Amino acid sequence: MTDSAVLTAHASASSPSASTDAATLDAVAAAAAAAAPLVRASADADCAGWLRAVADALDANAAELVAIADEETHLGTVRLTGEVARTTEQLRLFATVVDDGAWREITVDHADASATPPRPEIRRMLTAVGPVAVYSASNFPFAFSVAGGDTASALAAGCPVIVKAHSGHPRLSVRTAEIVTDALTTAGAPDGIFALVVGREAGNALVQHPAIAAAGFTGSLSGGRALFDLASGRPDPIPFYGELGSINPVVITAAAIAARGGSLATGLAGSFTLGSGQFCTKPGVVFVPTGTAFADDLAAAVGPATTGRLLTDRIASAFPVGLAALAADDSVTIVVGAIDSDTDAPQPVVLRTDARAVATRPDTLLEECFGPVTLLVEYADEAELFAALGALGGSLTATLHSEPGEEVASLVERLSQVAGRVLFAGWPTGVAVTWSQHHGGPWPATTSLHTSVGASAIRRFLRPIAFQDAPDALLPAPLRDANLAAAPRRVDGTLLLAAG
Amino acid sequence: MTDSAVLTAHASASSPSASTDAATLDAVAAAAAAAAPLVRASADADCAGWLRAVADALDANAAELVAIADEETHLGTVRLTGEVARTTEQLRLFATVVDDGAWREITVDHADASATPPRPEIRRMLTAVGPVAVYSASNFPFAFSVAGGDTASALAAGCPVIVKAHSGHPRLSVRTAEIVTDALTTAGAPDGIFALVVGREAGNALVQHPAIAAAGFTGSLSGGRALFDLASGRPDPIPFYGELGSINPVVITAAAIAARGGSLATGLAGSFTLGSGQFCTKPGVVFVPTGTAFADDLAAAVGPATTGRLLTDRIASAFPVGLAALAADDSVTIVVGAIDSDTDAPQPVVLRTDARAVATRPDTLLEECFGPVTLLVEYADEAELFAALGALGGSLTATLHSEPGEEVASLVERLSQVAGRVLFAGWPTGVAVTWSQHHGGPWPATTSLHTSVGASAIRRFLRPIAFQDAPDALLPAPLRDANLAAAPRRVDGTLLLAAG
Repeated sequence: MTDSAVLTAHASASSPSASTDAATLDAVAAAAAAAAPLVRASADADCAGWLRAVADALDANAAELVAIADEETHLGTVRLTGEVARTTEQLRLFATVVDDGAWREITVDHADASATPPRPEIRRMLTAVGPVAVYSASNFPFAFSVAGGDTASALAAGCPVIVKAHSGHPRLSVRTAEIVTDALTTAGAPDGIFALVVGREAGNALVQHPAIAAAGFTGSLSGGRALFDLASGRPDPIPFYGELGSINPVVITAAAIAARGGSLATGLAGSFTLGSGQFCTKPGVVFVPTGTAFADDLAAAVGPATTGRLLTDRIASAFPVGLAALAADDSVTIVVGAIDSDTDAPQPVVLRTDARAVATRPDTLLEECFGPVTLLVEYADEAELFAALGALGGSLTATLHSEPGEEVASLVERLSQVAGRVLFAGWPTGVAVTWSQHHGGPWPATTSLHTSVGASAIRRFLRPIAFQDAPDALLPAPLRDANLAAAPRRVDGTLLLAAG
Repeated sequence: MTDSAVLTAHASASSPSASTDAATLDAVAAAAAAAAPLVRASADADCAGWLRAVADALDANAAELVAIADEETHLGTVRLTGEVARTTEQLRLFATVVDDGAWREITVDHADASATPPRPEIRRMLTAVGPVAVYSASNFPFAFSVAGGDTASALAAGCPVIVKAHSGHPRLSVRTAEIVTDALTTAGAPDGIFALVVGREAGNALVQHPAIAAAGFTGSLSGGRALFDLASGRPDPIPFYGELGSINPVVITAAAIAARGGSLATGLAGSFTLGSGQFCTKPGVVFVPTGTAFADDLAAAVGPATTGRLLTDRIASAFPVGLAALAADDSVTIVVGAIDSDTDAPQPVVLRTDARAVATRPDTLLEECFGPVTLLVEYADEAELFAALGALGGSLTATLHSEPGEEVASLVERLSQVAGRVLFAGWPTGVAVTWSQHHGGPWPATTSLHTSVGASAIRRFLRPIAFQDAPDALLPAPLRDANLAAAPRRVDGTLLLAAG
């Protein structure tokens, strides 16, 4: 399949919302399947080069892309420009991960004729699982979209990628895909390594397509669950890595409020309104002691500001519905804002309830509400706090603001059980792109043990393969004697670093 | 929950098949949930010690266990004695894995105030996912049962384990569980770390129990798929690691037959009849060139020998049914044995078909048949061979017997796509217990990218957790400054070995 044929799979720029039909999806999937062994067997230097070429091309076209994105999402050029930089930084981090070689987890046990029974030689590594379906999110039109973390980590693993465009930014999706495809082609990547499909039906068909070996998703609980069920219900189930929803609890102790209540209020106000409250790491529920001035401080910090327009009509219309559902609980009062939020320019909203109510009605009060709202939960004592924390489901993050010397070990233990990242300073809406980052958590934060952010995201698209008593020339290149020392590896049980 | 209370969960030795009722299952699950944070936070030295204590206790009681197992499975004391040794070796390997520390994948990125935006400190590690359900297999009453690879790797990960006993060896299951529980208790492991439940209903309830965080399974495609669907269908889906079925293709070239056809026939005969053909790695389909004497050689190698009784009445009655289904295909002829196999002492069976038939009717001819049978598939040329190989589903293993200098790269590529372990000498029924081993493959060989055998089995029961800007004293012990150097780790992007 030629490059131009791949491009027909994504709707033309003049009609970016046209759905991909079944025949085109089949052709795209067949091209990905044909590319899979070539991409899998590519040299690390080539694969890393492709990732850097994509990053460079996106940077070179950032102004055009940001302009389209701002028209389609109203996120603003400052935020969007930063997001392009974050996205290309992420692509380059995965290039570094590929270069490093540890991702392949090369493991060699030499033959041992003296063992009972005699042991053969086995050489093992991780290898690409095959074509990956990626479902874009609306809230990060670059970092979690066409060239986002799922795409970057799947390409780094050596997998062709087929992206399902998000309907919230159709023109941006097509233009980004064109730039990615051109960059990959120019850099010498195999035809079929990348494509974009459009439309809900194509998305549903994609996760069920026999050529697809795994899927990555960022979006809503309902949409993600539907695709998860399709992936799991296949005759041959495939792994589905979804990020579905998170309320990101924050716990603030009395001592912390006494020491720095004002600055905590300012920090929280900035965090829950960031991106109009449309971050998956938005602090949605904040546990504070009763009898403090924190609610007043937060009200002052939020002030009369409005936030930007919400991303899509669907999110905009869902926001007041979600607010009303929370406010309908007898325990809830309004600290800041109004329930019938202006859908064109929603005002930040702060609600207040108490820990007893949360412990008894978690299904109502701990429901994620996408948009600029946070719920203060007042606790009278530690028993009330822990009872309410016991009702929490999984989240991407949990944040504790306490003071030195406080006895918080059991609190940290509890927060560690419900979240994938536990913060002790700052706010969860900042997600550094580093080796150590983890952006995942117990259901429904993510569907699996793995994550779409951070270096280990690559692992989701790798499977082990072992070769027993293979002639050197028939081994994949990374497992051959002459190449072993180039990467970190475990030999006869001992971990070794890359030479030189 | 006291140790004696845990023991009531597995039926008493006098009535080992009594099903576990719902109240008892709840109590066992609650005990596992209560134990989970203690087991998770245990020191590596303690956890490794528990594994070694279990291994020592099983070795000390091997004679009694083998006697029970031989009564229940008819596998013979030689094979069963070897399997106990393999099982305790596996437990000790996982103790070594725990000691090594690399499994925790400690990753630290220090804060960088000069970055844009400034980067916080993040420390990340893998940690236990929570209580694990383990479903025993019938064919390895030790190595894939109560104290088998799933149990060993889950305990090594720091997870409590609840085993669903296999109905094929009920007394052995109870006795093994008693020994494991006693050993764990004596070694100081937390109450609730281990329990056994009995009965299909309890097994179905177990994988759906809110306390269970992951499941491991070895068994049939139908049974595994049913449990996979229950695990995936939960309100909070959990990972289900199943090993479900494998036909383990073997390809033999004309040159290999010319060079060593006799010894290949002898090796194949030993492999497909091993354990009465009840290994998941049994070579079930063997591609050989047309016009050779290999079938005759194989017939001679098999000889008039009978194999032992099959493991369970269900397997025994299914074997002739499976044979008849294969033989019903017009292309199939009988080389050795009879279709109406004696279910008490089944005779080995060799069937023969051709590659064209396999390519056109894979659903009939590539169906796994548990028991001492293998199917020779004759190919006229490479085109026929590849067409038939293209119809293969996933397998645990694929074996190639060729001669030096033959052009087999594309054959190796094809076999690498369908199997998790590719062999170039010997036969797949030997599975060495080593760091490098991989016992998994594309569906239906296994449900996931991971495996129940080999050091990386531990990873299935671990989830990442990251701590951002945490005070040292509030970090889990392995992430504290004073302990970092004790394990392999990545710091600011650089991989480092354990000190000393």
